[in-house]
Amino acid sequence: MKLIVSFALALIVSFGCAAAQTEPDPLPSWNDAPAKARIVAFVRGVQQSGGQGYVAPADRIAVFDNDGTLWSEQPAYFQLLFAMDRIKALAARHPEWKKKQPYKAVLDGDMKVLAASGEKGLLELVMATHAGNTTEEFAAIVSAWLTAAKHPKFQRSYTDLVFQPMLELLAYLRASGFKTYIVSGGGIEFLRVFADERYGIPPEQVIGSSIKTRYELRDGNPVIVRLPEIDFIDDKAGKPVAISKFIGKRPIAAFGNSDGDFQMLEWVTSAPGPRLGLIVRHDDAAREFAYDRQSTVGRLDRALDEAPRRGWTVVSMKSDWRTVYPEWPR
Amino acid sequence: MKLIVSFALALIVSFGCAAAQTEPDPLPSWNDAPAKARIVAFVRGVQQSGGQGYVAPADRIAVFDNDGTLWSEQPAYFQLLFAMDRIKALAARHPEWKKKQPYKAVLDGDMKVLAASGEKGLLELVMATHAGNTTEEFAAIVSAWLTAAKHPKFQRSYTDLVFQPMLELLAYLRASGFKTYIVSGGGIEFLRVFADERYGIPPEQVIGSSIKTRYELRDGNPVIVRLPEIDFIDDKAGKPVAISKFIGKRPIAAFGNSDGDFQMLEWVTSAPGPRLGLIVRHDDAAREFAYDRQSTVGRLDRALDEAPRRGWTVVSMKSDWRTVYPEWPR
Repeated sequence: MKLIVSFALALIVSFGCAAAQTEPDPLPSWNDAPAKARIVAFVRGVQQSGGQGYVAPADRIAVFDNDGTLWSEQPAYFQLLFAMDRIKALAARHPEWKKKQPYKAVLDGDMKVLAASGEKGLLELVMATHAGNTTEEFAAIVSAWLTAAKHPKFQRSYTDLVFQPMLELLAYLRASGFKTYIVSGGGIEFLRVFADERYGIPPEQVIGSSIKTRYELRDGNPVIVRLPEIDFIDDKAGKPVAISKFIGKRPIAAFGNSDGDFQMLEWVTSAPGPRLGLIVRHDDAAREFAYDRQSTVGRLDRALDEAPRRGWTVVSMKSDWRTVYPEWPR
Repeated sequence: MKLIVSFALALIVSFGCAAAQTEPDPLPSWNDAPAKARIVAFVRGVQQSGGQGYVAPADRIAVFDNDGTLWSEQPAYFQLLFAMDRIKALAARHPEWKKKQPYKAVLDGDMKVLAASGEKGLLELVMATHAGNTTEEFAAIVSAWLTAAKHPKFQRSYTDLVFQPMLELLAYLRASGFKTYIVSGGGIEFLRVFADERYGIPPEQVIGSSIKTRYELRDGNPVIVRLPEIDFIDDKAGKPVAISKFIGKRPIAAFGNSDGDFQMLEWVTSAPGPRLGLIVRHDDAAREFAYDRQSTVGRLDRALDEAPRRGWTVVSMKSDWRTVYPEWPR
């Protein structure tokens, strides 16, 4: 009993001292510029009980796009690179692919021909590589790929290419009573393999595109089998639809980087009360990549034009971020 | 500072005393019978760190059917009674319904003819009453109905007909680090209107059947519009499929009352480690209703037969529950 009291006293004393001193910077990788100030003001405001901008913890919901917002997405969405590697791995079992598009383009490493196959071609690749197995088998395949594969420019694991400032932002929001969600055009089961470990976002807070699944018994054991049929595309107007379905209430903060996030940002920021909309702008060719209006991957055009009048904060990777990636172990 | 210390000391002292005494019964409305003992043993086991049955809090996920498991479902699913009241409320705007089935059956109060219209007829009623409005409009309609409508047998609000023993079970699980979910054949947006207030289950932990929705602008304001098209039926084999999609991991406890919960119970209880499967049996005509194998609503047949060999606990409402409903204010 005595020990517990001493411990509690120590806790209270140290807490008291910390409160008396300046708070530690919750966003050390963000330069002291307007974007950071805007985030901090919003987060402090929603916590000020009795204040005009106070928001109850149950309504502190923040949604994050993934590709280009929480990790890099160039030279192509990492999940597409996964699908291409998967085609190569499965090619021995499919000799017909050598002559059939879009498989041939993948095996030849011909990105131009692949791009020309359009949405239909990409869909075919997804079905050939993402369906036909159980949810557990698929997770194991993705996990093995993430462990082995290297990004062509940085020669690092893809999960090393998460943005340190955004990791800090996620942690800051959660420490401030927010529930953080991923709302991504990427595959929901692909994301869940690494989201908890890398972002601290558990599977039930990951929303993404999906293919249909079926419950069945295999040798008496129940499994969820992944079917070659699109269930839902979680992009553009699909994002607010998915948020409404999975979360059932309107978030108060949204973070994106492309026109695919436009409707999500619009929906989140057009209700009364404190709202935060933020766009990560890729303008840092030296440390990451620079692209916006002309890019096929993560195109940022309309959202960039409308950001000022909608009050969305545009974050310049180049000038707002002190560092881009976490320190990599050598 | 002095005040804070005194307060902390008081807290610690009172906590110390409570721990020294016997714990209060977490399930006072459950009779001291095997079902209660089984639940308590399971919940204690998963919390015993270092023990064989320990489960990390992140994996302590419990899923509950709603109709017949958390609240009553006779003489018909309450959501069907809502749809019927809604047809009556909208009838003035639809004179053609007087001559058209299944609307005529509803307006005549003829449950036999309505039942004969089958799944197709019921689906038509759902579309006529659940679609065409925004998510916010629909929630307001459901909320008004729940406030005004009375159950034909008990003459109480439908939300008074939740099961007190199950409310205690939900609270007990949450106090033991569980995340509690509803996984219901009922409509996800219908459930969300009352699940938080009545069950302490927030919208993002409610899974149910759904119709499709579309994001659109109305007078410049974004809304989610409910469309007359089925999206997903969350029943039978659909339950594990929906759990996999929304939660992304296999729960360790499942609670149901009918064959519609069979696959959910099967999926949850057929993995290694501690598992709890429980079936509420409606055998109490005096205090609630008595029905099982022959009922069209909440039929319990196969799951009852297989419960013993699958290790599912069958709860007799009559003998396991000290009370059925919460104390009603007069």
